Amino acid sequence: MSILVVGSVALDTVRTPSGYAEETLGGSATYFSVAARFFADVLLVAVVGEDFPAEHVQFLESRGVDLKGLKRVGGKTFRWEGEYLLDLNEAKTIRTDLNVFEHFRPVIPEEYRDADVVFLANIDPELQLDVLRQVSRPDLVACDTMNYWIRHKPRQLRKTLEQVDMFFLNEAEARELSGEGNVVRAARYIQTLGPSIVVIKKGENGALLFHGEKMFWAPAYPLEVIHDPTGAGDTFAGGFVGYVSREGDMSPRSLRKGLVYGSILASFNVEDFSLRRMATVTADDIERRFEEFRHLTSFEVL
Amino acid sequence: MSILVVGSVALDTVRTPSGYAEETLGGSATYFSVAARFFADVLLVAVVGEDFPAEHVQFLESRGVDLKGLKRVGGKTFRWEGEYLLDLNEAKTIRTDLNVFEHFRPVIPEEYRDADVVFLANIDPELQLDVLRQVSRPDLVACDTMNYWIRHKPRQLRKTLEQVDMFFLNEAEARELSGEGNVVRAARYIQTLGPSIVVIKKGENGALLFHGEKMFWAPAYPLEVIHDPTGAGDTFAGGFVGYVSREGDMSPRSLRKGLVYGSILASFNVEDFSLRRMATVTADDIERRFEEFRHLTSFEVL
Repeated sequence: MSILVVGSVALDTVRTPSGYAEETLGGSATYFSVAARFFADVLLVAVVGEDFPAEHVQFLESRGVDLKGLKRVGGKTFRWEGEYLLDLNEAKTIRTDLNVFEHFRPVIPEEYRDADVVFLANIDPELQLDVLRQVSRPDLVACDTMNYWIRHKPRQLRKTLEQVDMFFLNEAEARELSGEGNVVRAARYIQTLGPSIVVIKKGENGALLFHGEKMFWAPAYPLEVIHDPTGAGDTFAGGFVGYVSREGDMSPRSLRKGLVYGSILASFNVEDFSLRRMATVTADDIERRFEEFRHLTSFEVL
Repeated sequence: MSILVVGSVALDTVRTPSGYAEETLGGSATYFSVAARFFADVLLVAVVGEDFPAEHVQFLESRGVDLKGLKRVGGKTFRWEGEYLLDLNEAKTIRTDLNVFEHFRPVIPEEYRDADVVFLANIDPELQLDVLRQVSRPDLVACDTMNYWIRHKPRQLRKTLEQVDMFFLNEAEARELSGEGNVVRAARYIQTLGPSIVVIKKGENGALLFHGEKMFWAPAYPLEVIHDPTGAGDTFAGGFVGYVSREGDMSPRSLRKGLVYGSILASFNVEDFSLRRMATVTADDIERRFEEFRHLTSFEVL
């Protein structure tokens, strides 16, 4: 199974209570790709500037991410600078320099157009819709967004959502999009906009999955040390969509196990800055934490 | 199995986004007792004033709560007035009139002193310790507290905790007591103060159980309508301690199922003001929601 991901590849500068990292590899498409690659082929479409370090390209190549869709253009790479205070669930943005990302118009390479699965990372919903026009009937369309688009492009976002099967958003975004304070009612409303599968991300409190009329809750794996939450949401989506793609079905069991794998991959990601931990984690590490996760949530078979 | 509970019986006035209730039955010992009674015998020690309505006494009697320890003295009953805004996890106290509760010195009736289990609801840690001096070696001592005692009686609270097996507190209290921002490290530290079992309550995000070196996470049952969160924590503790008492063992399975029952009873309690929903919920309702809870958290057997 192959997953086409369209989003950002960036250079991040991040300060958290446990440290600081400058101009490290980041971006929604990057985090998603590296996580999803544990389970499926990944075809990446994004843009970087002339200054994008060769070592980052090599890292993504070493993970087997297909980079034919990574365009390098004149100008500087998208940069984000942010800070986390004691509440690690919320990033405070210090600076966003869109640079070459400002005029990003995703062009899907011919050989990517029949990808089985499409993941639209957090970009302008008009661009998300434009990507869907270029692909040929994927089995699954998954999509992320952010409060900015909910506020400033509500009509375009709703148009995109009509074509989306699986939608990722956090609690605050779900409340804002639906106008419902209660998260269950918010998710039920969002399902009427198109996506039959809605995933409400709750940061360190895990995630709620709404599939059809059913509900599933997976906690986040509780860690004693969290160094950098950046990219947790995209890593989570990458693990989730990756696992479901590999299983090749949308059964409740596949979706629920996928959510757990997403949660586990995110738990590794936050153990270090940028993608440092993701660069060393192995399939065995993931399976071991899956066992721990099973124990964390079991109350009958022990 | 019998559970001795020592705490408050109160008259609450509560405003939430969905309504208002004036001078209704409340108090930590009340909520705990009614929930625990689904599983075990409950012996209540508390104090009320001359103005305490007979209908509330009749209600507690009708639930089979032993009221020999409910003392009626001259003066007015403890009153609490609070409000919940959109964040239902946090009550804003408008007024606290301690009244007869101010001079409450729990005297444990002779026939309560060999109770199998003791639950020390949120009262002055010096009084909690005084209760423990009056009882004869219970199998389990469980205890609740609040930020006020953590701040103002830290030495006394620690002295009480040395004799506690199971300690309930919320995330903010755990951070304050331990000085640790990370909740896992906070719980591990609190275990060194005495209680081998630490339960961190996370409101609508469920609860984390630390037992020995193990961890268990149960979500809160996600509801579409929450009318009044008052008493959720004590109802949760009542369901938990009640179930564990009935099972008569502290095995991981018993503790974990107990936490789930606690979460389920709390989910009923918040469906209406005061104990209105608890007055109608049946053992069948509880088992039905247990099944739903199993489905909510299952990712392998479906």
